[in-house]
Amino acid sequence: MEDREKRYTLAQLAEHIGARLRGPGELEVSGIGALASAREDQLCFLADKKHLAQLAATNAAAVILTEQMATATERPVLICGSPYLAYARVSQLFDCTPQAGRGIHPSAVVHPGATVSGEASIGANCVVESDAVIDGAAVLGPGCVIGERCRVGAGTRLHANVTLYHDVSIGKDCILHSGAVLGGDGFGFAPDGGNWVRIAQNGGVVLGDNVSVGANTAIDRGAIGDTVIEDGVIIDNLCQIAHNVRIGRNSALAGTCAIAGSAVIGANCTLAGGAGTVGHIELADGVHLTGRTMVTKSIGQKGAWSSGTPMMPSAQWRRAAVRFSQLDSMARRLAELEKKLND
Amino acid sequence: MEDREKRYTLAQLAEHIGARLRGPGELEVSGIGALASAREDQLCFLADKKHLAQLAATNAAAVILTEQMATATERPVLICGSPYLAYARVSQLFDCTPQAGRGIHPSAVVHPGATVSGEASIGANCVVESDAVIDGAAVLGPGCVIGERCRVGAGTRLHANVTLYHDVSIGKDCILHSGAVLGGDGFGFAPDGGNWVRIAQNGGVVLGDNVSVGANTAIDRGAIGDTVIEDGVIIDNLCQIAHNVRIGRNSALAGTCAIAGSAVIGANCTLAGGAGTVGHIELADGVHLTGRTMVTKSIGQKGAWSSGTPMMPSAQWRRAAVRFSQLDSMARRLAELEKKLND
Amino acid sequence: MEDREKRYTLAQLAEHIGARLRGPGELEVSGIGALASAREDQLCFLADKKHLAQLAATNAAAVILTEQMATATERPVLICGSPYLAYARVSQLFDCTPQAGRGIHPSAVVHPGATVSGEASIGANCVVESDAVIDGAAVLGPGCVIGERCRVGAGTRLHANVTLYHDVSIGKDCILHSGAVLGGDGFGFAPDGGNWVRIAQNGGVVLGDNVSVGANTAIDRGAIGDTVIEDGVIIDNLCQIAHNVRIGRNSALAGTCAIAGSAVIGANCTLAGGAGTVGHIELADGVHLTGRTMVTKSIGQKGAWSSGTPMMPSAQWRRAAVRFSQLDSMARRLAELEKKLND
Repeated sequence: MEDREKRYTLAQLAEHIGARLRGPGELEVSGIGALASAREDQLCFLADKKHLAQLAATNAAAVILTEQMATATERPVLICGSPYLAYARVSQLFDCTPQAGRGIHPSAVVHPGATVSGEASIGANCVVESDAVIDGAAVLGPGCVIGERCRVGAGTRLHANVTLYHDVSIGKDCILHSGAVLGGDGFGFAPDGGNWVRIAQNGGVVLGDNVSVGANTAIDRGAIGDTVIEDGVIIDNLCQIAHNVRIGRNSALAGTCAIAGSAVIGANCTLAGGAGTVGHIELADGVHLTGRTMVTKSIGQKGAWSSGTPMMPSAQWRRAAVRFSQLDSMARRLAELEKKLND
Repeated sequence: MEDREKRYTLAQLAEHIGARLRGPGELEVSGIGALASAREDQLCFLADKKHLAQLAATNAAAVILTEQMATATERPVLICGSPYLAYARVSQLFDCTPQAGRGIHPSAVVHPGATVSGEASIGANCVVESDAVIDGAAVLGPGCVIGERCRVGAGTRLHANVTLYHDVSIGKDCILHSGAVLGGDGFGFAPDGGNWVRIAQNGGVVLGDNVSVGANTAIDRGAIGDTVIEDGVIIDNLCQIAHNVRIGRNSALAGTCAIAGSAVIGANCTLAGGAGTVGHIELADGVHLTGRTMVTKSIGQKGAWSSGTPMMPSAQWRRAAVRFSQLDSMARRLAELEKKLND
Repeated sequence: MEDREKRYTLAQLAEHIGARLRGPGELEVSGIGALASAREDQLCFLADKKHLAQLAATNAAAVILTEQMATATERPVLICGSPYLAYARVSQLFDCTPQAGRGIHPSAVVHPGATVSGEASIGANCVVESDAVIDGAAVLGPGCVIGERCRVGAGTRLHANVTLYHDVSIGKDCILHSGAVLGGDGFGFAPDGGNWVRIAQNGGVVLGDNVSVGANTAIDRGAIGDTVIEDGVIIDNLCQIAHNVRIGRNSALAGTCAIAGSAVIGANCTLAGGAGTVGHIELADGVHLTGRTMVTKSIGQKGAWSSGTPMMPSAQWRRAAVRFSQLDSMARRLAELEKKLND
């Protein structure tokens, strides 16, 4: 699906990624392939030695790899320190995401009190409410709704059908994927006898620059003060970010993570898919959570944490699960045996 | 982000929440702050004794607290039995959610066979299908789609981009957040050899009054008969409510809960984030599930239930996880040792 | 909510499902009810012997059941080998989903470079981008956005507010529910010091025929090559399908399943609610995962797998959870005791 109209010579690519080229500089490639299945006009990368065996058989025009790996092939290669990073940089050259034209689509409904930059693109059927500001070359895909007093920074792209409630501020060069909802009410209710009384959520949502938000992810507005996502944070699809959460610079949350209210995630944390936290806890910078880990207490220093049980054949698992429920008694019986034996 | 145009005197606030005022009745506040960071024109609340230490240092104009806490400060205070509930009531006075004007936006597509109250507000780019009824002062945000024969009760607000399929009935004074989808097909398929034959989902969805539904939550229509959410139920973001589920009055489901088909949740249950149930089970009134608890059997009386394992440093967790898979054998070996020792 | 206008005689229904009728062929029914609560003009089915007791008391006009069950009642019955499958077939006769009229709604924004079949239905406020193809009697509900170069096959229905990015190909007779997002960027970023460099996701998404996708489910586009969902796959609400995943023919994923990048799910797998996998693993054909199972390694042959712990009263669970964290030490102590006793 990559745009085959885009073609680059190996010399151009080498310069783009700062690699050393071994091979014909004038050779053109028209996209990126996987080592095992690349066409002859495609470029590949080899980032992990365990795929070294595929190198011999590849049809690729050239391969991005390290100095050391380069000795294993006669093919044209682009030699650099970090092939994966170089691949990321090259992938952007072949980006097939359609570019949006400047201007406001005639079907969009833009409030006269909103401010839209002449560089910006407002897609079909968008709604931009009063006092919203759409900066620089920001792009709103079709069907986006931008609430009152929102700000969308220059170079930021909202794909189709993103919803921003009022008072949501997005920095520069962010990407928000379709179905993302920012600024919905935090889940705040006070019990009154058996009933729930709604707590108006009077804070907002603030995203820094270079933030990425996945499809159908929800980031709630703060109850008092803002929910804050700092610069460079990347959040995958279907994540839940509750009110007054703060996520530190460059942290990464994979799909279906769920962060409860007022939790503070440090910088450069990495949360694998389905990880989550209870509310009102803090993670230090650099904490890593393995898949589906549930954080129930603050974590004061960097390190990796886990929870859950390993997968097992169901029949065997059922027995282990029953034993889990007897675990406290097993521990007591074990201690008793030890005591008996020591006596 | 709160609306600083709204200002209330302490006397007005005391009357609104039924509190006893100690301090100058004519003093005005313009919003609510947190104890630790409030501006001098903001009101605070103190609901938990563990934050009592912050009381001395606050800049807030006044604090909502209990009789007993009031002795710890000389500041103006609003004394009441339940500061958290009082805070909820005050928060609504400062609600910054934009109010919608009456009437049908010219870009909305309303079927001539639909009935829209003169008090209602239909936002830009909404679609209202045939035989739908939008009652009283209901509000549809931009981009909502209301299917055939739906009913939206007076005072109910659908935020932007909510989708109701056909035959969905919403009571009065409900709030549905953006991206919520009500009335999609329940996941019903009959196996036919290796293939799946779709079971038409011919029931509907019925929400009572004062129900809250979070962003990107899905509530499926019933297969036979309706999926029912009773009065006062509050559901957070990204929850999955399958076909023919019934959730009893005033129950609360935090983010990413998932209730499988035909499950019946009693009244006043509280499900913490990520909790869920298998299908066809019942929870009694007043059941509490801790975060991520998976209910696999009916629970016949109120009480708190849990599942899962605690978080641990990953290295340590890996060892425990291996042992989990040996748990049945450990239990047998333990029993054997006991037998030996008793012999 | 079923369409009571639709009426069928028992003779018609028997023919439709290939059942043997015992009772009056001219008797009309107008819908399907549950055994316990059916009206006198409704049909029921009895698929599980455990509900046999309800048969005596039902008011239903007739019941679909097996030869053997039929001996337990004097009522009109439709006798067949698989009552549940027969019910599925009859349910479609009473399908209450509104049919869409042909043609392009005047409010839709269809790019002149798109191709829309004369049989297709394009709902209000849809956006169809350049070079998209909408085939045969495909239906786009209101508010759908179809990106450049997408293809929607004949007979496929997208309910309201579905988003397809560019280069998404949907086969024939698929159903996509509201809020589904197909073709969003896979979560691919390369670390560069503390920062993340976006990897352009230049693959697409390909769905076969007869695929069902639930509300608010996200299926990401591939990084290199496509994300592929084969014919007959059924996916429930709020599922996350990451980039370059492949799901084999007729597999079923219940609500909130999450499949990480490049995982390959075989054919005829069944994943119960909340199940998931890490990336780059393979499941053989016919694997079954129980609710919330987390797959961390490839599974090479069919069979059922589980993970997690059983639900317990919270007080008891807390003790077991503490013991879980001591499990490795318990195992060592147990081994030591065994050694002592053997010595």
